[in-house]
Amino acid sequence: MRQALKLAESVLYITAPNPRVACLIVRDDQLLASGATQKAGGPHAEVMALRQAAEQGVAMAGTTVYVTLEPCSHHGRTPPCVDALIAASPARVVIAMGDPNPLVGGQGVARLRAAGIAVTTDICTEEALAVNPGFVARMTRKTPWTWLKLAASLDGRIALANGESQWITGPAARADGHHWRARSCVVLTGVGTVLADDPQMNVRHVKTTRAPIKAIVDTRFQVAGQARIFDGTPTWVFTCASNPEKTARLADRNVQVIELPAADGGVDLHAMMRWMGEHDVNEVHVEAGARLSGALVQTQCADELLVYMAPMLLGEGMGMATLKPLQQLTQAQRFEFMETVSLAPDMRIRARHIDHWKTLLQALQRSN
Amino acid sequence: MRQALKLAESVLYITAPNPRVACLIVRDDQLLASGATQKAGGPHAEVMALRQAAEQGVAMAGTTVYVTLEPCSHHGRTPPCVDALIAASPARVVIAMGDPNPLVGGQGVARLRAAGIAVTTDICTEEALAVNPGFVARMTRKTPWTWLKLAASLDGRIALANGESQWITGPAARADGHHWRARSCVVLTGVGTVLADDPQMNVRHVKTTRAPIKAIVDTRFQVAGQARIFDGTPTWVFTCASNPEKTARLADRNVQVIELPAADGGVDLHAMMRWMGEHDVNEVHVEAGARLSGALVQTQCADELLVYMAPMLLGEGMGMATLKPLQQLTQAQRFEFMETVSLAPDMRIRARHIDHWKTLLQALQRSN
Repeated sequence: MRQALKLAESVLYITAPNPRVACLIVRDDQLLASGATQKAGGPHAEVMALRQAAEQGVAMAGTTVYVTLEPCSHHGRTPPCVDALIAASPARVVIAMGDPNPLVGGQGVARLRAAGIAVTTDICTEEALAVNPGFVARMTRKTPWTWLKLAASLDGRIALANGESQWITGPAARADGHHWRARSCVVLTGVGTVLADDPQMNVRHVKTTRAPIKAIVDTRFQVAGQARIFDGTPTWVFTCASNPEKTARLADRNVQVIELPAADGGVDLHAMMRWMGEHDVNEVHVEAGARLSGALVQTQCADELLVYMAPMLLGEGMGMATLKPLQQLTQAQRFEFMETVSLAPDMRIRARHIDHWKTLLQALQRSN
Repeated sequence: MRQALKLAESVLYITAPNPRVACLIVRDDQLLASGATQKAGGPHAEVMALRQAAEQGVAMAGTTVYVTLEPCSHHGRTPPCVDALIAASPARVVIAMGDPNPLVGGQGVARLRAAGIAVTTDICTEEALAVNPGFVARMTRKTPWTWLKLAASLDGRIALANGESQWITGPAARADGHHWRARSCVVLTGVGTVLADDPQMNVRHVKTTRAPIKAIVDTRFQVAGQARIFDGTPTWVFTCASNPEKTARLADRNVQVIELPAADGGVDLHAMMRWMGEHDVNEVHVEAGARLSGALVQTQCADELLVYMAPMLLGEGMGMATLKPLQQLTQAQRFEFMETVSLAPDMRIRARHIDHWKTLLQALQRSN
């Protein structure tokens, strides 16, 4: 199954809004065929693997099929994978995690069993969730999985007191950041960053066939029509201000303006996350200033921290996230360190929100 | 040699102010005997290994002796190891790094060679330096090697805005911190910390036969006689204020008051480091507030950062180190990450000052 999960990761940038799934066909510990889900509308992992098996004349009798997500049992843009598996009739199907959609979860397993195929499920559930946190989040809590990308000094400063921030981290860290943009469905920033730096927020340094949508939180709708962020792929502007004339003008630049209610002096971030969930967004990559980053943490909209840390102390300067003052340390939201990777001279630290992660895991377990 | 360096690390807490040294006696890739330097005044590594060899009836002819530091050639509290080696007459001596003292460096090697023993030197110099940075610093630049122990959130806060800091990091991180106190010669803090927290600053959770001296930077000599830091081992108070009566009173509590010139509104930290170098201090472990930590960084007295980082964001709060504002990122002192260790739920990040480290390495190379 670990090998299957590795293969699923190989389509990290491709499948959205579908989950990244891989399928291995094995007999006597020998890998006979494999496949991974292609871009949305294309064949799923099971079909890719069965196709390869057929091409190579592999007899399915007595095989074990490993698949990283419960095979689909409904007609979407492609026919149900369960039908293809039943037709192929392997001896056994081993599934890493059930379908996170509580409405359909378990039906794939049930139909396989009804067809006389032995099924084992919930093998490496947590590892499987780690490949598709966004898909599971969208299916179970109706909002995307969101990480904050932060570039900071060892003492947590993202800019000097005078605003200088280019470049705290080096080329290796900056290039790595583009991989995280590439896997996301939406790259989100704040209007402050757009006005100050006029960033492109597109994917560079990574070969990919799918570009994420770009999005701006812009409470007062201040963004200028010539902003470079509007070049290329579509952009969403989330705002509390109505300006039909400007909205119409921006439509020519492939910009969709979404008016949302206000909360706490800015765009209601929960409403924004729900809106994105409704619009097939699995993963949101945030690159913003301390204000928006802080607001996302404060409202519990930040699921993961992706911190590029430079080995220097800056003393005074802009912090990572502006938060309301805490009275006690126990009030701080609890994250857990996931991994640390050297990107010399910097390093990348990932941490995830303990409760948010647990909630996804529990939802998966409940759906079975 | 790597095995010898590992053995040298086993006496990390013991040998100060002497360096941590190990010696292996090997023939045909077979380890015949080994030894490590004991506490100051006790036998050096070479003597320990030769003794073990003699006890076990090992014939020294044809052996190779690996030693992590050039054998001493002068009479200190023990006779020169070079004499013992020449008397034993191995075929070859392999040395990790030369004696860092430019006045004596190379004489050990020269005398071995004159006695007809083949000598190879500068094998794993940098690794050998890493075992004894303090000894090398004291010998070459006349000041100790100094690290700042910091416990902070992921966004670099060592306390909440209201001052609460107990406990940002968990028990594993706190216990680990005691190992770093135990290996140091001096545990240094500021009077602000003493007045606010009344810490003991002693070594707990670690078995050790040697306790570091404790020291306080106390510009205006504000410390109270009943402070808990004065319990146990001797304490130094570095101050700019003269108070002979208080000094005399504190002497009963095993406190030595050292009057130093002022610099930049506080104790001249360079003078303090030189004083410690003159008083056989190899390694200084600093646990202080943002002010003293910042002053040590600002004055280039911080060689290493030992950061225990908790996976949480605090937003507002006390920073790691108060520094004068930088105008450009290029003005920041450059550290390099050395290692990251998980101490769940926290992690320990070590970074060292690039130029300070290079200077020690170059001094070692020059002394040969």
